Amino acid sequence: MQKALQVAKSAILRDEVPVGAVLVDYKNNKIISSGSNTVIEDSDPTAHAEINIIRAACREKLSTHLDDCDIYITLEPCAMCAQAISNARIRRIYYGAYDPKSGGVDHGARVLESSSCHHKPEVYGGILEKECSDLLVGFFKSKR
Amino acid sequence: MQKALQVAKSAILRDEVPVGAVLVDYKNNKIISSGSNTVIEDSDPTAHAEINIIRAACREKLSTHLDDCDIYITLEPCAMCAQAISNARIRRIYYGAYDPKSGGVDHGARVLESSSCHHKPEVYGGILEKECSDLLVGFFKSKR
Repeated sequence: MQKALQVAKSAILRDEVPVGAVLVDYKNNKIISSGSNTVIEDSDPTAHAEINIIRAACREKLSTHLDDCDIYITLEPCAMCAQAISNARIRRIYYGAYDPKSGGVDHGARVLESSSCHHKPEVYGGILEKECSDLLVGFFKSKR
Repeated sequence: MQKALQVAKSAILRDEVPVGAVLVDYKNNKIISSGSNTVIEDSDPTAHAEINIIRAACREKLSTHLDDCDIYITLEPCAMCAQAISNARIRRIYYGAYDPKSGGVDHGARVLESSSCHHKPEVYGGILEKECSDLLVGFFKSKR
């Protein structure tokens, strides 16, 4: 999660919402992909940190499945990213700040609990919650 | 929707699930992007037809919003695509076949009805339903 926080911080320099994510091969504890939001940079409303690193890792592995991976994210995933994480067959989600407004895992659509979700990763929220949350709150305050 | 069906059919040749989508600028009724699933071709579990054409259209317009667009899809969007369509601020969703198993609009997570969905496109399902459904049923039958 420290690494996810680090890439989230780098997003601020590009004026992107500071969310960072890291994919880890849990068998050897090795980071296989990390990245942040690039929505503005890429003019792409789907370019959330989670989507970016899933795409990069799958391209690298020439596979649509990341069964050997856990994902660490500084913010609760939205509904889009939650379903993408499920599609990629990722084992576990560890995330930092809760997102009552736009989250889609423990709030809102609760995508992973729905009947149309066919792979349900284990979810652990609130990891380094304060650091992850402070980063976002500080960013949005600076925008006002 | 005829155009969406046409691109869906083209996906069969690449052994992809035949789902097609088209983005239309509703002000001048012009198609601005069309495409099908490329999940296998691109080794990308996020490369559903909807995501592909939203990314292409936004890149072309250098914008993260497609407020002037409606989307036509041969199949009910999943939760990932439903949230992506919302993120892109698309006005209306017209879709063909209902998807009780994996749909995320009128089934499952019903993403657009959730409190974490901040732009809710109008939804019209069942357009050319039989043609869209027959295409998918035929594809999966041929795989057995």
